[in-house]
Amino acid sequence: METKELFVIGHKNPDTDSVAAAIAYANLKEKNGVKATPLITDEVNKGTALALKKFGVEKPKLAHMVDFPEAGVILVDHNEAGQWADGLIKEHVHELIDHHRFGDFSSAKPIFVRVEPVGSTSTIIAELFQEYGHVPERHIAGMMLSAILTDTLMFNSPTTTEVDRAMAEWLNEIVEIDMMEHAQAIFKAKSDISDMAVSAVISKDFKEFHFNSKIRVGIGMFETVDAKNPLKRTAEFIKEISQIKNERKLDYLLFIIVDILKQEAYFVIGGDKEQELVEHVFCGEMKDHTITCPGVVSRKKQIVPPLEEHFAGLQ
Amino acid sequence: METKELFVIGHKNPDTDSVAAAIAYANLKEKNGVKATPLITDEVNKGTALALKKFGVEKPKLAHMVDFPEAGVILVDHNEAGQWADGLIKEHVHELIDHHRFGDFSSAKPIFVRVEPVGSTSTIIAELFQEYGHVPERHIAGMMLSAILTDTLMFNSPTTTEVDRAMAEWLNEIVEIDMMEHAQAIFKAKSDISDMAVSAVISKDFKEFHFNSKIRVGIGMFETVDAKNPLKRTAEFIKEISQIKNERKLDYLLFIIVDILKQEAYFVIGGDKEQELVEHVFCGEMKDHTITCPGVVSRKKQIVPPLEEHFAGLQ
Repeated sequence: METKELFVIGHKNPDTDSVAAAIAYANLKEKNGVKATPLITDEVNKGTALALKKFGVEKPKLAHMVDFPEAGVILVDHNEAGQWADGLIKEHVHELIDHHRFGDFSSAKPIFVRVEPVGSTSTIIAELFQEYGHVPERHIAGMMLSAILTDTLMFNSPTTTEVDRAMAEWLNEIVEIDMMEHAQAIFKAKSDISDMAVSAVISKDFKEFHFNSKIRVGIGMFETVDAKNPLKRTAEFIKEISQIKNERKLDYLLFIIVDILKQEAYFVIGGDKEQELVEHVFCGEMKDHTITCPGVVSRKKQIVPPLEEHFAGLQ
Repeated sequence: METKELFVIGHKNPDTDSVAAAIAYANLKEKNGVKATPLITDEVNKGTALALKKFGVEKPKLAHMVDFPEAGVILVDHNEAGQWADGLIKEHVHELIDHHRFGDFSSAKPIFVRVEPVGSTSTIIAELFQEYGHVPERHIAGMMLSAILTDTLMFNSPTTTEVDRAMAEWLNEIVEIDMMEHAQAIFKAKSDISDMAVSAVISKDFKEFHFNSKIRVGIGMFETVDAKNPLKRTAEFIKEISQIKNERKLDYLLFIIVDILKQEAYFVIGGDKEQELVEHVFCGEMKDHTITCPGVVSRKKQIVPPLEEHFAGLQ
């Protein structure tokens, strides 16, 4: 087992945490004498690209460029099969490090799993560095710090814990940057959608969930430091939503623009079904094809659990 | 979270590991300042009763005597919903410590999970004692040691790892007993079925699995130091197998007597469907309604994975 190459891989439409966690955990494995290579499922977003450049880290290879060896893949930052890289099967999965709820996760054999209810997967990996008695190099620490800051929305998300703050402070003893300035630079880069097709904006941070084992819900999140800009393209989004819904055979598609400075979510409503669901499960009433929910910023903590409960109640 | 009472609970038809892991992990929680009470789902077996008596440990309360508080239950030694205590729902599950494969595990929220591919859950809990810097008292160490010895079949099961041996040795520095003699005493007590109904023998260590999300397979294991005795009751077992199968709406029921000294499995064949399955997936041919597979001792490592693969291939 120690001599075989392992791949470390995050979820589809990777955010900074998925990329940083793969890079940092592969690095930790190498420190422990196990050959490991980080991979990405899709192209990185502009915020992640900024962090990679700032810390001089090479962008990982795309997963579709490699063959997965049996029992040789480590999943980071996700567990639900709907979010796995194409071609992955459970026989490949060797290890799992995550901070999300479990959604019908299966493994072929007993594997090593470490999941904690903290703000980012990189937080757990920073803890593992400490447990194994290693101090990460600055470029690796910088990637983990970028991930903690963005995944916790600069410690504003309700998913934030004391452990996230402690690990960020520990990492910044190595990195030594202005954390808030760095986080804002990443968010600003990520918010720039001027050259992006609407389909790309919706699927940038898109996850598919299966509630009650059968109701397929796609949830796209777009985090921005200025929601006004993307909201101008609402009509284009609505058209695209119904197309993606059909293509992916989803029962519902929720596309949500999150203003991380104002701490507000804007649900762009694609159809009557979505309007009914959002008004029933979340809040407010529709205006200009949008429902605004103040205080809602976290898919994991504020969007998925109420949906889970709602659909479970329909059984 | 720190002030609320937590319950720690193993799987249905508890073996020594499920009981010891609940006792030891509740004890560790208390050491860390969290109120926690171990529970059992069903009556303990005679081997576990012997260990409890030897180390002066009180038998945990039965789970059906308590109400589960929301987000207040810690699962040990199992994850699949089919093995949960009656009345448990995923909203109760607060934490999970296990050493089995994952089988469609869901959690309502992100929770703390620690799963490792080692020989017993008590091995992981011994590691957690070390990580938190606690040394268990002799009675707690004795229960964990009993669990490691029985779950690894005295280090003979293919699930055994170096970590199991290391933790057993560490615990025995505290307990100071003849490990092999103690393990044999537990197995001997457990093998005594003279006063048991056949139904109780089959369901003593019975787990239900859902393969391919739909094929329901019940697997009962009976570990003994002398298979000759239970095999005399084959005709009674067969009658009971078809009854349990109907009652629980199972597609297959495999009842397997494991001789842990000879290291052999005896599949007691309840019907044509089971015969075909065992001959196809495992080994040998039937004789006296029994199929003998030398070297097969572990449900987790040698019985479930080939079945998983077989049923996945039927998709």
